[in-house]
Amino acid sequence: MKLLRYGEIGQERPGVLDPAGGVRSLEAILGPGGDIGPALLADPGRLAALRALDPDALPAIAPGTRLGCPVAGIGKVVGIGLNYHDHALECGLEIPKEPIIFLKATTALSGPGDDIVLPEGGRKADWEAELGVVIGRTARRVAPEAALGHVAGYCVAHDLSERAHQLEHGGQWTKGKSHDGFCPVGPWLVTADEVPDPQALDLWLEVDGVSRQSSSTGQMIFPVAFLISYVSRFMTLMPGDLVITGTPAGVGLGRTPPVFLKPGNRVRLGVTGLGEQHQRVV
Amino acid sequence: MKLLRYGEIGQERPGVLDPAGGVRSLEAILGPGGDIGPALLADPGRLAALRALDPDALPAIAPGTRLGCPVAGIGKVVGIGLNYHDHALECGLEIPKEPIIFLKATTALSGPGDDIVLPEGGRKADWEAELGVVIGRTARRVAPEAALGHVAGYCVAHDLSERAHQLEHGGQWTKGKSHDGFCPVGPWLVTADEVPDPQALDLWLEVDGVSRQSSSTGQMIFPVAFLISYVSRFMTLMPGDLVITGTPAGVGLGRTPPVFLKPGNRVRLGVTGLGEQHQRVV
Repeated sequence: MKLLRYGEIGQERPGVLDPAGGVRSLEAILGPGGDIGPALLADPGRLAALRALDPDALPAIAPGTRLGCPVAGIGKVVGIGLNYHDHALECGLEIPKEPIIFLKATTALSGPGDDIVLPEGGRKADWEAELGVVIGRTARRVAPEAALGHVAGYCVAHDLSERAHQLEHGGQWTKGKSHDGFCPVGPWLVTADEVPDPQALDLWLEVDGVSRQSSSTGQMIFPVAFLISYVSRFMTLMPGDLVITGTPAGVGLGRTPPVFLKPGNRVRLGVTGLGEQHQRVV
Repeated sequence: MKLLRYGEIGQERPGVLDPAGGVRSLEAILGPGGDIGPALLADPGRLAALRALDPDALPAIAPGTRLGCPVAGIGKVVGIGLNYHDHALECGLEIPKEPIIFLKATTALSGPGDDIVLPEGGRKADWEAELGVVIGRTARRVAPEAALGHVAGYCVAHDLSERAHQLEHGGQWTKGKSHDGFCPVGPWLVTADEVPDPQALDLWLEVDGVSRQSSSTGQMIFPVAFLISYVSRFMTLMPGDLVITGTPAGVGLGRTPPVFLKPGNRVRLGVTGLGEQHQRVV
């Protein structure tokens, strides 16, 4: 099941993708105030009821309607740094012995097709295609073997990073990771039952039609189950929390000389089975 | 006005402090689902209406009732690192040229008297008394001169830090700052009208009756107005967001040899006019 949220910014409504790729409304089904959020994602019974619906019987939403971040009420966005060998090497950094954890501000969340607005004073905005993992069941010190049972679903996530703000202003990455719109998510949340192996997904990104990143989640240093387990030692993961699992080689910072996003660039990225994002840089 | 939330964890209800220091309920006034949260803090009219109430006419809550974090629905907790000269020096670190920004997980938030639970595997939990600033009006690239107009109020905040997790695991501070219960806030939120100068507040902390921190917000390297302005260049601050403004000298890490919290310790901390926190370490 591919859950999504459609409509203008701040006015998104819950929906689901139909087999033909159209958007259908779940607004009447979920009722007033109902949304694709922590309460729904933590409720296997309600998810099963949605799965049992005939999407073709739900109201169709006009093609071209904006999609928002497919999960409402995300409590935290946990980022993992340097989780692909080739990306650590291209950054000139050591392979980490354990996952690097950072947080992105939740105000950075945006829809999969929203414009990327370059921050005033920023000059080194960089792309990072990633697999996003959304939590469905509270995770506190869970074992790796049990960790995937805490996942509600998977999505494409773009971990945009202003490298000057990230790396040249005091050591903590927060400043470069948290600008408004620096975390496009979606187009949809694919429920975990449709992703038998999160370590067997191709992910890719291109800028103006030129391939920049092309890898597989099989190349992660620390796989998803280990990441969930590891993060849950340091903080409790709640339903609706988003973990973005690191990016492979091919970022602008890793090129010689480095290349960063400029107004007018078009970015496309995707993950096998999880859909694609398309963004314009402004 | 001193706004607060009372009741068991996860069941807190809105209240206000009366002139005699008793807790009064705002539950009936704020109505079903009403709370001390972003919507209220962003609404000067509703705050003025609360201020006009006679607290002694509101229902009294039994003394000894637990207090929770005084703000519900905090979207992000923005920490400022090394914002007092003497603390930077005791850590053996350079005086920052600009504020260091990090994020604490919102799952770390707790009440002002809740036990501090030492994390499993942690051995270097340290104290940090801080002035907390709660946003009342959306702040995006605001000028320092306008920044205090975006503040709803002030509170005591305890920025607990597991130093091994913060400093010995990959460079980002997130792991040491985000444990459950590592951000006690309160006892109350003092609205900004009652804090004419946030740079003229004494703050202090003691462990088992021994003074460990004693300073004034006048010693901050970057004052509150500058911090709000600066943070708002990198992320949008929303109503209900909490900015914790750094700690003065006297943390356990700064002692020779270092001293960290142990089960059984009692911690007290406070800020002039903003109340006190009392915690037991378990």
